[in-house]
Amino acid sequence: MKKVNVNKIMTRGKAMFLAYDQGLEHGPVDFNDKNVDPHYIIDIAKRGKFNAVIFQKGIAEKYNEEIKKSKVPLLIKLNGKTNMRKGEPISKQICSVDEAISLGAVAVGFTIYAGSEFEPIMMREFSKIEEEAHKKGLVVVVWIYPRGKGVKGRSEKELMAYAGRMGLEIGADIVKLHYNRNKKDLSWTVKSAGKTKVVIAGGVKTGEKEFLSEVKDIIGAGGAGIAVGRNIWKSKDPVELSKKVHKIIFGK
Amino acid sequence: MKKVNVNKIMTRGKAMFLAYDQGLEHGPVDFNDKNVDPHYIIDIAKRGKFNAVIFQKGIAEKYNEEIKKSKVPLLIKLNGKTNMRKGEPISKQICSVDEAISLGAVAVGFTIYAGSEFEPIMMREFSKIEEEAHKKGLVVVVWIYPRGKGVKGRSEKELMAYAGRMGLEIGADIVKLHYNRNKKDLSWTVKSAGKTKVVIAGGVKTGEKEFLSEVKDIIGAGGAGIAVGRNIWKSKDPVELSKKVHKIIFGK
Amino acid sequence: MKKVNVNKIMTRGKAMFLAYDQGLEHGPVDFNDKNVDPHYIIDIAKRGKFNAVIFQKGIAEKYNEEIKKSKVPLLIKLNGKTNMRKGEPISKQICSVDEAISLGAVAVGFTIYAGSEFEPIMMREFSKIEEEAHKKGLVVVVWIYPRGKGVKGRSEKELMAYAGRMGLEIGADIVKLHYNRNKKDLSWTVKSAGKTKVVIAGGVKTGEKEFLSEVKDIIGAGGAGIAVGRNIWKSKDPVELSKKVHKIIFGK
Amino acid sequence: MKKVNVNKIMTRGKAMFLAYDQGLEHGPVDFNDKNVDPHYIIDIAKRGKFNAVIFQKGIAEKYNEEIKKSKVPLLIKLNGKTNMRKGEPISKQICSVDEAISLGAVAVGFTIYAGSEFEPIMMREFSKIEEEAHKKGLVVVVWIYPRGKGVKGRSEKELMAYAGRMGLEIGADIVKLHYNRNKKDLSWTVKSAGKTKVVIAGGVKTGEKEFLSEVKDIIGAGGAGIAVGRNIWKSKDPVELSKKVHKIIFGK
Amino acid sequence: MKKVNVNKIMTRGKAMFLAYDQGLEHGPVDFNDKNVDPHYIIDIAKRGKFNAVIFQKGIAEKYNEEIKKSKVPLLIKLNGKTNMRKGEPISKQICSVDEAISLGAVAVGFTIYAGSEFEPIMMREFSKIEEEAHKKGLVVVVWIYPRGKGVKGRSEKELMAYAGRMGLEIGADIVKLHYNRNKKDLSWTVKSAGKTKVVIAGGVKTGEKEFLSEVKDIIGAGGAGIAVGRNIWKSKDPVELSKKVHKIIFGK
Repeated sequence: MKKVNVNKIMTRGKAMFLAYDQGLEHGPVDFNDKNVDPHYIIDIAKRGKFNAVIFQKGIAEKYNEEIKKSKVPLLIKLNGKTNMRKGEPISKQICSVDEAISLGAVAVGFTIYAGSEFEPIMMREFSKIEEEAHKKGLVVVVWIYPRGKGVKGRSEKELMAYAGRMGLEIGADIVKLHYNRNKKDLSWTVKSAGKTKVVIAGGVKTGEKEFLSEVKDIIGAGGAGIAVGRNIWKSKDPVELSKKVHKIIFGK
Repeated sequence: MKKVNVNKIMTRGKAMFLAYDQGLEHGPVDFNDKNVDPHYIIDIAKRGKFNAVIFQKGIAEKYNEEIKKSKVPLLIKLNGKTNMRKGEPISKQICSVDEAISLGAVAVGFTIYAGSEFEPIMMREFSKIEEEAHKKGLVVVVWIYPRGKGVKGRSEKELMAYAGRMGLEIGADIVKLHYNRNKKDLSWTVKSAGKTKVVIAGGVKTGEKEFLSEVKDIIGAGGAGIAVGRNIWKSKDPVELSKKVHKIIFGK
Repeated sequence: MKKVNVNKIMTRGKAMFLAYDQGLEHGPVDFNDKNVDPHYIIDIAKRGKFNAVIFQKGIAEKYNEEIKKSKVPLLIKLNGKTNMRKGEPISKQICSVDEAISLGAVAVGFTIYAGSEFEPIMMREFSKIEEEAHKKGLVVVVWIYPRGKGVKGRSEKELMAYAGRMGLEIGADIVKLHYNRNKKDLSWTVKSAGKTKVVIAGGVKTGEKEFLSEVKDIIGAGGAGIAVGRNIWKSKDPVELSKKVHKIIFGK
Repeated sequence: MKKVNVNKIMTRGKAMFLAYDQGLEHGPVDFNDKNVDPHYIIDIAKRGKFNAVIFQKGIAEKYNEEIKKSKVPLLIKLNGKTNMRKGEPISKQICSVDEAISLGAVAVGFTIYAGSEFEPIMMREFSKIEEEAHKKGLVVVVWIYPRGKGVKGRSEKELMAYAGRMGLEIGADIVKLHYNRNKKDLSWTVKSAGKTKVVIAGGVKTGEKEFLSEVKDIIGAGGAGIAVGRNIWKSKDPVELSKKVHKIIFGK
Repeated sequence: MKKVNVNKIMTRGKAMFLAYDQGLEHGPVDFNDKNVDPHYIIDIAKRGKFNAVIFQKGIAEKYNEEIKKSKVPLLIKLNGKTNMRKGEPISKQICSVDEAISLGAVAVGFTIYAGSEFEPIMMREFSKIEEEAHKKGLVVVVWIYPRGKGVKGRSEKELMAYAGRMGLEIGADIVKLHYNRNKKDLSWTVKSAGKTKVVIAGGVKTGEKEFLSEVKDIIGAGGAGIAVGRNIWKSKDPVELSKKVHKIIFGK
């Protein structure tokens, strides 16, 4: 078992990812005339010095030359779903590890809706991906989002820490989760995740100040960084904002 | 990853497909004594200068010599269902990529009922087809039809744009969808689909004038063309009508 | 793609099959002391000059020498079920194409309950069988029986024509279906099935006169023949009756 | 297709099997301090001259040397379940054909709960086992137990005959079923099963006299023998009783 | 079939395992600042002379060097679930036998919730693991926990004995189960399990005295040992306590 080099998408253990898988998850409602275009995103990723850009395989394939030219490391999401379907959440694998590699990915991502009736199906699929991806030298990132009937009435604090620990137990290099905006809780989550790095999901668009303050909290609490989408590519000056985030995370 | 040449079934990025998979989807109720016969369809496809004819594998096999002789490019639908079954829609793969190739197909098609309880199953099947078909040089067309419990109460505009974007995200070269008859909405849909081409489904038989005016709108809004069945092969003079459509789409 | 020779179980496009898969579908209730014995059936098939005899794999294996000696072509049903199970109908594959070949089959059969909740599962299984069986030179026969919640309230005429068309679309060489006893409807069904041959299921035991008159109607309406069981092997003189049927179908 | 030699576990077409798969099906409630120990069973099987002993793979593996030393032919049950689970009955494969062979089995067994909602799953699994086991020269025994929602209100006579016929149709060499204690019905069942041998399940412990009289009836009605467990290994002198049974079945 | 050497994780048939798979099953709620860290656990396992430490694959991979250095034999749990999901219990395989081997495991573990609606799925998965793991020389441990709708109203005594027997029947080398705190019942369970060793699950944290007295009872009743987690790593002096346990189990 050779060790995977997590610094393919991190810088000295810290990370700043540009997420752009919302087109499948929510449809184009999040987009405007500019950011509906993947070229715009690739440009931000490059000029904003992101550690990786997150795409579904379709965009990775159709804009492959542009991505390669940008030299931004590519993380391909291997599962996905629409929000048109109702009922207990499930997200099935829609891209193989081999296809991701052939598209130039150095990392793969996968979402598990912990607590869903279909949790076992997602855990099983992830486990096979983890094994294959690690064997082939890819960094493995898991999105753990507690959701569905099972988690009703449980505290955000407990669910966040559980998500972090789950990432470690199932073999992810990086676990991406939602931050409950309590530094102490995040600190415990980071501890629970052990050698697995904790990265925070960006969530809906907020004010710039609030966003930057949250990034500071995350880093202060020991988080490894953020995976941000809307807060960057919906902002007026994405590159400028990215630089501010970069400064917080990497100190320069 | 070699690039697939979409012009196997397009002419400079525009397309006019003759759809004839209604026999499985609806039974022969759409047919009369003439158009019940695949020979009649192949003849229209040839003389009407269609970019491709769309068949299920059974017709592609039983009328294989006639299709080859016509030189019309062949697009085989890889999944299908009857309308006898009720409940949440699902359409399973009933033809392999290899069988399609052995029958002479240069393109394959697949329907996803987005929003159905079974959406994850169809997305998973499509994803494997996309990978294999692209590896083997076939053009990949996805029909995205939002349907089922999940989409109740959502606007046609939003669903159309979502369908277009979904086609891009999951790796189709061409996405086929229903037009809500609003040019501005279609224009946004085309933008959302990025480098994936948008082709409009023909739908039920309407008057010739109305049909031609719709084709004009589609092209005007940036659509790549149409996949039409009943409006052509149920018309009095299918070849004549096809020429009029051809003129709108290709300007000659 | 080499063409399969349908005349392995037809004579100049006409067919007369002896069906004996009732033991699994209904149990031995259809049988008496004579016809419970497969030897009796094999003898009728031979002396009655049937184009093929239809068995499940168990009988094909245990009476293999007798079948081979009779020289009657063998059609093995690849799926089956009991009538003990209730609920939406489903019939799963219980014999592989390779096992059928090793037992000496020149043709394979498969039932699809169109309209059942489980239609997609049966269509998927059939599609794989069709591909493999055709590749290996076997004639492919599909039983299409609309049944289950989905078909309530639909006319027999429409369902029969749909069954015929479905046989063509999904790639069967021969489609076996129930006759609604209306020649005009059958004629339309035959047309809808195109190059796929239409064979009528025998159904429950009726009077000899009525049975022979029905066979005449079937042939008159363009049907390719019949697959008959109980009306033959429950009759007093099966071989004599078979000769009368033979005369109607083949004119001698 | 080479013929399997059923006399690996029969003597001139008659059989006496010692069943000991109750530990999984019912838990140890059937056992006492003596018969809880597989050594005790192996000893009875040997000294009672049984044609085969029936074990799950776990016992076959842990007591493998003892079984081999006894020279009693080994029949391994390939599926099984506990009675802790409620709902429609299903018994999944838990031992592969290859593992059974590696443990020294010359025959394999499989239970189908005909009429259960899950009948199709069990029939499909059995069909693959039958194909592989026969190819590798093993005798194939099927337990057919009509059970579940589907069989309510049907007569024991009809279900017993159906079970026998089903065994023949799906390719078993031997079908094991429950006897309804009517010789005429069993005689018809044996006829319905054709060349497939009918063996009767022992059932719960009864008085010795009643048990022996039942064995006589079974043989008298044409049955091939019995698969008995509790009536032997719960009796005071299992070997003595086995000799009496042996005398009835084999005449010595 | 070569015999697996169970003493890879036992000492003359007795065992003392340190369980640490609670992070996935319950989240980090069981942990404090010390024992949340796998290093702390590995240290206890080494200094406390445990026969094996039980991890999920994620911890086995991220702390692989530390584990190897400790020389404590590694048992990897191959399935797992969170307690966020509600409904009938199911635990799917999330680590392959090959991955476990590549991580240095000499034994694998698997949980079956007997009585659950999903019991057949877990039994089927376990059966494949058992076959592969034994072929590759690993010790196979099964956790059998009767749970779900099916077991309501059944006595703990009966369920414990059933669990033990089930372990034997399905081929485990060691069965891990819950002790009902009745020595006579455990004695019968051990007898029912035959050559399969019975190890008792530690359960929730209790007082040290009570815990040690329970260990004595287990050994006295013929149990092979314990798999303990919280009672050790939540205690004030885990190593000291481990030595006391060691003395009871191994006499020194």
